[in-house]
Amino acid sequence: MDFKEKIGIIENFPKEGISFKDITTLIGEGEGLRASVDAIVEHLKDKNIDLVVGPEARGFIFGVPVAYALGCGFVPVRKPGKLPGETLSIDYSLEYGTDSLQIHKNSIKKGQRVAIIDDLLATGGTIEAVAKLVELAGGEVVSMDFVIELTELNGKDKLEKYDVMSLVKYDI
Amino acid sequence: MDFKEKIGIIENFPKEGISFKDITTLIGEGEGLRASVDAIVEHLKDKNIDLVVGPEARGFIFGVPVAYALGCGFVPVRKPGKLPGETLSIDYSLEYGTDSLQIHKNSIKKGQRVAIIDDLLATGGTIEAVAKLVELAGGEVVSMDFVIELTELNGKDKLEKYDVMSLVKYDI
Repeated sequence: MDFKEKIGIIENFPKEGISFKDITTLIGEGEGLRASVDAIVEHLKDKNIDLVVGPEARGFIFGVPVAYALGCGFVPVRKPGKLPGETLSIDYSLEYGTDSLQIHKNSIKKGQRVAIIDDLLATGGTIEAVAKLVELAGGEVVSMDFVIELTELNGKDKLEKYDVMSLVKYDI
Repeated sequence: MDFKEKIGIIENFPKEGISFKDITTLIGEGEGLRASVDAIVEHLKDKNIDLVVGPEARGFIFGVPVAYALGCGFVPVRKPGKLPGETLSIDYSLEYGTDSLQIHKNSIKKGQRVAIIDDLLATGGTIEAVAKLVELAGGEVVSMDFVIELTELNGKDKLEKYDVMSLVKYDI
């Protein structure tokens, strides 16, 4: 499938000058949802993945069906105050200011092989924070899989120690 | 599967007196994720569902894999400002104050048969709002499927014109 044909481009969202890549048109059709999930599953199926981890909210959109198709569990990473149990937290830098993410403390067993999934790789800041949370919790980050990569933002450089895969690349 | 064995109970979250039902332990294992998604799919498979709709963020956790398994598309309902395209909005009452939800304007074709999926049916206020958005967008709400129903909160009364299914019921 030519994923770019199914991904919408919305100019000036969420702010002036940003050319937003909209995956809702891709997943809004059964074919697009299935093809994108299956392409990630294809990349992961021989890697002995124990768990899929994804950040809210769009990370859930691709992460959970991939976990379902692989037959493994899914562990959510969320903003502070959303997870009900004991959590591990991490602060990370954004373009302006900082943000925090949390994972449940006992959600990963020591040495479990984890695939991190999100819709979009931009600067890589969020995913680097997710990876650190997985490692803090005792997991091994085996793969990072994205639907979209914005190559110009060089997220891959920040994640160079990981195996990074994306279904489609945009240079702007 | 005895889903109650896999669902955690966390007292006094998010506030004093609430006995929170935690689905992260259910979906954190491949078996639990697969069994819960498959049980919803089983309920929907002969209903000619065209689209699954779910509200952020936990509605994505069950809604997307159900859509994937059914082979249909998934349409997200989100808080204001999150969807990049033209939206339809609805305001609805909470215990204290009001909240708003949005759906993409052209995400549903007239007459498409929709299943609404969320993790939890409590008072039914959020799901009633989601159903109104689906109907505003031109869809027909054929089924509402939940993992958990808190029967004491009588959400089903508010949703009596719909076909409501839940995998597990708690009376508190």
